[in-house]
Amino acid sequence: MSTGNAGSPNDEAGILGRVAATIESRKGADPSTSYVAKLFSKGDDAILKKIGEEATETVMAAKDARVSGDGAKVLYEVADLWFHSLVLLAQFDLSPQQVLDELARREGISGIAEKAARQDS
Amino acid sequence: MSTGNAGSPNDEAGILGRVAATIESRKGADPSTSYVAKLFSKGDDAILKKIGEEATETVMAAKDARVSGDGAKVLYEVADLWFHSLVLLAQFDLSPQQVLDELARREGISGIAEKAARQDS
Amino acid sequence: MSTGNAGSPNDEAGILGRVAATIESRKGADPSTSYVAKLFSKGDDAILKKIGEEATETVMAAKDARVSGDGAKVLYEVADLWFHSLVLLAQFDLSPQQVLDELARREGISGIAEKAARQDS
Amino acid sequence: MSTGNAGSPNDEAGILGRVAATIESRKGADPSTSYVAKLFSKGDDAILKKIGEEATETVMAAKDARVSGDGAKVLYEVADLWFHSLVLLAQFDLSPQQVLDELARREGISGIAEKAARQDS
Repeated sequence: MSTGNAGSPNDEAGILGRVAATIESRKGADPSTSYVAKLFSKGDDAILKKIGEEATETVMAAKDARVSGDGAKVLYEVADLWFHSLVLLAQFDLSPQQVLDELARREGISGIAEKAARQDS
Repeated sequence: MSTGNAGSPNDEAGILGRVAATIESRKGADPSTSYVAKLFSKGDDAILKKIGEEATETVMAAKDARVSGDGAKVLYEVADLWFHSLVLLAQFDLSPQQVLDELARREGISGIAEKAARQDS
Repeated sequence: MSTGNAGSPNDEAGILGRVAATIESRKGADPSTSYVAKLFSKGDDAILKKIGEEATETVMAAKDARVSGDGAKVLYEVADLWFHSLVLLAQFDLSPQQVLDELARREGISGIAEKAARQDS
Repeated sequence: MSTGNAGSPNDEAGILGRVAATIESRKGADPSTSYVAKLFSKGDDAILKKIGEEATETVMAAKDARVSGDGAKVLYEVADLWFHSLVLLAQFDLSPQQVLDELARREGISGIAEKAARQDS
């Protein structure tokens, strides 16, 4: 049974929630022990700079993929972009579930329909 | 029971999978009927341009949020960034589940451990 | 003889100065009559969004140029990027000459050496 | 008298031309001796990544400038953005004068009018 919290294994936001929880645990940690702790210690601008960087790398990877025919690098760069998005969300005390909820809202999928669907499964 | 395909409601990629399925359904659709169909009809560069744009808007929203104290715009812009990432993934026949799998792999969570965790819950 | 003001034809910042003067003249103009007037009427975010967009387009153009062997698109996109940089400078009451001075300063070329060089020529 | 080549002191592209000449001289130099030599040794992607980074930093600086009331950081970041644009131009065997010519062309200033103006001065 889903407990509904973002970190549970089969929750909608399963992996995202767990990665977010790991990121959250790095807040205030010794910057020398973790990449994410170091980003947090540097503050907003360091995190935002990474968002810009990873977006640029995603664009380059997509261009390369059209030449090489291999989409793996696109996957890898989108993962980097989403990872740093999770760091940014944590920096602003936001969760990936809130982003998913916003995407669902735009799709016209209500939270109630979501919950019902989970219980039916 | 989860059928394991990306579009099922309680799949790991639940909302992302459904949004991806909607996006996928716009491929080849009349560009005048849908924003996503229009992006697909324009091709790679139009989609990549949006990745760059949404990254920039995320940076601006985060800067604004520090002044206003309201993180809602960050949430909205990250949702835009992820949405256009899903369009890019579709353009390269990739799925959000593959991005989540890559994030999980980096976290040291194997697919097997994931499946076991889902069955235990 | 160079009169030394940014708009004179053979000034160091000749073309940049003239483009900047044209941009400056669009401040407060009817947004419906000019692209730049429209950008100014929209404010900072519209201009900054263009900086992000043009940077992304420059990256894409460079990637394309490696495949096509034709660098013309790189030139065109750098021109776009610099043009919108000039709009940004105007928005903050800064001039291209100040950017050139900063570049010269980093190169170790003093303003005095510059002036002497101009008079010698 | 202007000799018309990009590196001469009172040429239209004066400072830009000299910075470009310095950058050009770093091609093939020992990567351990110069930042630009290191960028060239890494290739296109390293240079393009910097374009994306500096654009993001320009956006952040402009946002900060609105809060602090100090535009100096905007100036500094635009200088960084233009500097890395010059590295990109060099990487594609293009010159800043070509970018200025493109900007002049868009302004409706013909090269002939330009040359006449220079001779009159």
